Amino acid sequence: MARPTISDVARAAGVSKGAVSFALNDRPGVSADTRARVLDVARAMGWTPSAGARALSTSRAHAVGLVLARAPEVLRADSFFPAFIAGLETVLSGRDYALLLQVAERDDEPAYRRLAQQQRVDGVILTDLHVDDDRPRLLAELDLPAVLVGPRLDVPPSPRQVTLGADDGPAVRETVRHLVGLGHRVVAHVAGPADLVHGRSRRAAWEAALAEAGLRPGPVVEADFSAESGARATHHLLDLAPDERPTAIVYANDLMATAALAVAHERGVDVPGQLSVTGYDDTELAAHLRPALTTVRTDVVGWGRAAATRLLQLVDGDTGGGPAPAAPTARLVVRASTGPAPST
Amino acid sequence: MARPTISDVARAAGVSKGAVSFALNDRPGVSADTRARVLDVARAMGWTPSAGARALSTSRAHAVGLVLARAPEVLRADSFFPAFIAGLETVLSGRDYALLLQVAERDDEPAYRRLAQQQRVDGVILTDLHVDDDRPRLLAELDLPAVLVGPRLDVPPSPRQVTLGADDGPAVRETVRHLVGLGHRVVAHVAGPADLVHGRSRRAAWEAALAEAGLRPGPVVEADFSAESGARATHHLLDLAPDERPTAIVYANDLMATAALAVAHERGVDVPGQLSVTGYDDTELAAHLRPALTTVRTDVVGWGRAAATRLLQLVDGDTGGGPAPAAPTARLVVRASTGPAPST
Repeated sequence: MARPTISDVARAAGVSKGAVSFALNDRPGVSADTRARVLDVARAMGWTPSAGARALSTSRAHAVGLVLARAPEVLRADSFFPAFIAGLETVLSGRDYALLLQVAERDDEPAYRRLAQQQRVDGVILTDLHVDDDRPRLLAELDLPAVLVGPRLDVPPSPRQVTLGADDGPAVRETVRHLVGLGHRVVAHVAGPADLVHGRSRRAAWEAALAEAGLRPGPVVEADFSAESGARATHHLLDLAPDERPTAIVYANDLMATAALAVAHERGVDVPGQLSVTGYDDTELAAHLRPALTTVRTDVVGWGRAAATRLLQLVDGDTGGGPAPAAPTARLVVRASTGPAPST
Repeated sequence: MARPTISDVARAAGVSKGAVSFALNDRPGVSADTRARVLDVARAMGWTPSAGARALSTSRAHAVGLVLARAPEVLRADSFFPAFIAGLETVLSGRDYALLLQVAERDDEPAYRRLAQQQRVDGVILTDLHVDDDRPRLLAELDLPAVLVGPRLDVPPSPRQVTLGADDGPAVRETVRHLVGLGHRVVAHVAGPADLVHGRSRRAAWEAALAEAGLRPGPVVEADFSAESGARATHHLLDLAPDERPTAIVYANDLMATAALAVAHERGVDVPGQLSVTGYDDTELAAHLRPALTTVRTDVVGWGRAAATRLLQLVDGDTGGGPAPAAPTARLVVRASTGPAPST
């Protein structure tokens, strides 16, 4: 009973393959009787048009692509993708769309061309946008609908592209205001890579919030989102001369902030008594750390849902000119890792 | 230049669509000259057979499916899948195979039937096998090659199925022996769900290792792999009467063990002075906790590589009768969260 083909149906119905094809595709060329018999037999055999045949006949692949522009080793430690994929799937599975994962470096133009030309997908979702990313231009040239997940780009997208404005600026500003309200005057930042759009936007928001409070930016260390790099950055900041040393550090993700808690303990620096620490993500562990981590809660599942919904609208012919759907808002969650600035 | 079709090539070459089809599919019906001209034109236009057309002509979808039998919310907190997918991709992208993600509950038989009948994939990878899982039987009936990731099943797989023997027993036994060697006599276990094959196998290994050491099993709490459930289980175990209370707890994953470190601290229980704690996974954070976590390092990227390699062998016609490839071995990594049993 596995995968009955047109040949199987033809044999069972006692007609030619051509007749089966005409009947199943509702085209002229067979009698009403034959058409009825073929449909009955096909239904009884559990026949389904293959995805390939459906794609050819409707020009739809019934799949969308998620392009991961990361090395497999980097992908490994990431907490974003399982949640994002979970959100995509809640929408896609309801529409019987498949999700196709493609790993392609950002500059791997042939991989993107193949994706478009082989008609494996009806549209793609791009994440990890870089500052000088030319994939939006390439996808526009290939006429492939795309949702670009990240802060709004400077370059206006093509009519078949939308940016999903997952702007992390407001929550970072809320974090800095929380720290300033606790009396902190030297607030450092451990940033993500500066060539990633979201790494750059978190840093800009941190700097803007300090300026609003009349403070100059504290020291910045550029790290790479890994626990190891967070630990290294923390050592560096705690080694600074007393007048430059921060009393609070804003980390660009939870993984780096968690590593910082261990470094502080190891060096005998009390958190939050002598040092306040904040993260970004609100990973499952954040509430279970010691001290529990003050961090920014993001609704990544919600982003996935919004991205899939918007992409299917584009695939269905809606153009991207209208306003992008509101991405779920991130917000600060205050726990025990932040406290009043130490008196000097 | 987006997606040149057979019609585009026909127009550019000045021949009929039928002639293009004959030429590109290397079939008789066109002259050698026409064939050469069509191929030249098609190449110049960057023409590629669509995946759909290729699938129809070669009976290959050039994609494999990874079926996630989990609710999106549960998928969210998981550290296994990014690493596993990274491993799959290292093999699949080299063979120009796509990875298709499908979320389907374990008892969603129609979803598995659709996957087979629509010919979207040439084979599937199943994870999270349950004790009474009937998906292997269903896939055998659908004649879809499958790699079953997990400890070897009791039921012999069909000729087109292999289990990838990711047996976590030896490393759990090594963990228990490490604790017994440190003088622990009451070693508890915080287990994963008993209806998951790998939850059950870790528990059986813990029990066997204690029996080998002449000890009876300590208390067991069945949890669900979440941080929250790990914290609850820890409170329960530390509330036991002194003669039943464990001096060491073996957790079935790092997430639960990490939550336990915070619970112990909150209750004034020193780790490892009064309580030894072990995890399973060696997540990126484990080495950066305080105390750093003794745990089992698994090569999940390596599992992904092995699963994809084996599945493509099955797709290529190799039957599963031979021995399964060796899954990478898990091993104990001793850090600061385990120490000598407290003297009583």
